[in-house]
Amino acid sequence: MAATGTATGTAEPDKRAEPGTRERLVRTASRLMQHGGYESTPVKQLVREAGATLGSLYHFFPGGKQELAVAAIGHGDGEFAGTLGAALDSDPDAARAIEAAAGVLADALAASDWRDGCPVTATALESVGRLPELQEACARSFVNWQELVAAKLRASGIGEEDSRDLAVTVIAALEGAEMTSQVTRSRTPLLLAGRHLARLVASYTP
Amino acid sequence: MAATGTATGTAEPDKRAEPGTRERLVRTASRLMQHGGYESTPVKQLVREAGATLGSLYHFFPGGKQELAVAAIGHGDGEFAGTLGAALDSDPDAARAIEAAAGVLADALAASDWRDGCPVTATALESVGRLPELQEACARSFVNWQELVAAKLRASGIGEEDSRDLAVTVIAALEGAEMTSQVTRSRTPLLLAGRHLARLVASYTP
Repeated sequence: MAATGTATGTAEPDKRAEPGTRERLVRTASRLMQHGGYESTPVKQLVREAGATLGSLYHFFPGGKQELAVAAIGHGDGEFAGTLGAALDSDPDAARAIEAAAGVLADALAASDWRDGCPVTATALESVGRLPELQEACARSFVNWQELVAAKLRASGIGEEDSRDLAVTVIAALEGAEMTSQVTRSRTPLLLAGRHLARLVASYTP
Repeated sequence: MAATGTATGTAEPDKRAEPGTRERLVRTASRLMQHGGYESTPVKQLVREAGATLGSLYHFFPGGKQELAVAAIGHGDGEFAGTLGAALDSDPDAARAIEAAAGVLADALAASDWRDGCPVTATALESVGRLPELQEACARSFVNWQELVAAKLRASGIGEEDSRDLAVTVIAALEGAEMTSQVTRSRTPLLLAGRHLARLVASYTP
């Protein structure tokens, strides 16, 4: 899942070749939170790995680490949406496209030695009842991804309500399977989820 | 999910009324890790909330926090297995039993104000590639829960391989849905997962 430079809400011109300080802080926070969540990402390490300073962090994010983390979740949201959207576009059939998406996630996970899982999940769990702004940003990510899947299902002729409901389960199952694949260091949970979700979706397709 | 006092591997007699120091440490670690994962559970808080001392922690767990955390994951594993097993036993039909299990999880989550999610997930994600013994304990938990579901599926007449494969997806989808329910503060993701998993399982039932 390569950084796209478009998902951080900045209105700056595209500087992909050499991202600005704000962009580097957001990308670094996103990567570190993907790997270890929010709490175990020390501000000092974050600033150092971004090649930035504490002063610049508070310049761009007056609210400090939590404000940066919200931007980082938005960045991860956009990256994951890009990966998911491309996979869903790869096949006109919704069931096959969802199975393909699971395969793409499994391959990316294996290629990263099982480290690059969902950019939101670890932080989402930590945020529950503790960090409301961060929790809201994570919830928004899930809803965005569900909407991508729901649109694909509607385009396959599945009714509005079934599409919306199924999309919640598709994203939840992919999330859970990605976590299981990471912890057990195996593509299998994601590939099985893809196969079973395809069967489920096909049972709704007219 | 009440503590059962049976899942920590101690051979002590049942002391539910007043658990011993080791048991209190394990239960407290399990609860704190359920809420915030491993890294954001400070040893000092853990010892204080368990009514114990640092000395007693290192007496029972010479390997320190990580060794205690492995025991805590074993405890959470047993608690979750108890909840899941009871729900699966509540209906002879596997599909309906799995839907019932999702409902039980949704009710327990709502009753805890969305805090008491899976006792393993948050720690599992943090452990990947960082804390191998803890990662292995988390992976074992998932496999144990999968085996409970697989046994239920086999008892319903689903073939050996399909039962094993489906069980991986059932646990993954319940895990992902529980996380989504927590973050969005809604029973709906778990209830939808239950309904969709029941439909999927029914499509395999002879």
